[in-house]
Amino acid sequence: MKKVEDYITSIKDFPKEGIIFRDITSVLQDKDGLVLAIDEMQKLLENVEFDVIAGTESRGFIFGMPLAYNLKKPFVLVRKKGKLPRETVSVQYDLEYGSAEIEMHKDAIKPGQKVVVVDDLIATGGTMKATAQLIEQLGGKVAKMIFLVELPDLKGREVLKEYEIESVVKFSGE
Amino acid sequence: MKKVEDYITSIKDFPKEGIIFRDITSVLQDKDGLVLAIDEMQKLLENVEFDVIAGTESRGFIFGMPLAYNLKKPFVLVRKKGKLPRETVSVQYDLEYGSAEIEMHKDAIKPGQKVVVVDDLIATGGTMKATAQLIEQLGGKVAKMIFLVELPDLKGREVLKEYEIESVVKFSGE
Repeated sequence: MKKVEDYITSIKDFPKEGIIFRDITSVLQDKDGLVLAIDEMQKLLENVEFDVIAGTESRGFIFGMPLAYNLKKPFVLVRKKGKLPRETVSVQYDLEYGSAEIEMHKDAIKPGQKVVVVDDLIATGGTMKATAQLIEQLGGKVAKMIFLVELPDLKGREVLKEYEIESVVKFSGE
Repeated sequence: MKKVEDYITSIKDFPKEGIIFRDITSVLQDKDGLVLAIDEMQKLLENVEFDVIAGTESRGFIFGMPLAYNLKKPFVLVRKKGKLPRETVSVQYDLEYGSAEIEMHKDAIKPGQKVVVVDDLIATGGTMKATAQLIEQLGGKVAKMIFLVELPDLKGREVLKEYEIESVVKFSGE
């Protein structure tokens, strides 16, 4: 039986030389790959008690929404600055070059709520750290962070060491 | 029983004066609203024969993915230029000010495949028209376009008159 990693395309030197890009669109493009990916992520939430799923623009939406539907949980959006129409909280964070700012609606999370964060891939962990800060600004607690793909060599777990993290597939040695 | 429209927030003068913005994030933020929205969209696909679901960045991902999972269909991404890692086709189209360019992977759709296009909202129809052109460039056929929200006064159906369109909720008179 095929595994999730069998559906992932590895692209050398994208977006720049020396990087192997792990492309998850080829997983989604196969109906069996898509169902398997979601089911495997859902297993990472068995026995996790939580209230809300948060997904970060835009690939967090792809994996977060089917889980929210299946598990009957609210889904809240973490978006780039300026895209959410109601009152927001925001966090700025550093990228390799320059910085980025992400936002959540102020009423997206109620104080005390337990939040699962979903994204396609964890690399350096910068965006996930900022996402956790937004959740905490609103009085929420990160229950767990789950990913389809993890690149352990980029040490995202160090940046996120205070959180519980689990991923379906790991690619090391790059 | 609550309807989808009861979960939508209407925001006056966003993003500019005179516009009533229909905010779908408040639908997702409620677990019953989220399940109802997806179930109502799924009803629009009963008796539609198709092979693939396409979603346009980024809110098309939100509604397209749960439908792809539930109906066991592949999901293909329509993204802004430069974000897809493999070989693409692209279409440029006009916005109110300036223009935009969207892309699909060349292998996202095989010639002859029937494609359902999913998005949160149809307004002027510009992005949906461009999405249809991408699908047709790849030899696919648009089987149906479905939306959670339609703003009929913005006449998207005129721009898309060659396609079958259906939406869950309509807001007129704005």
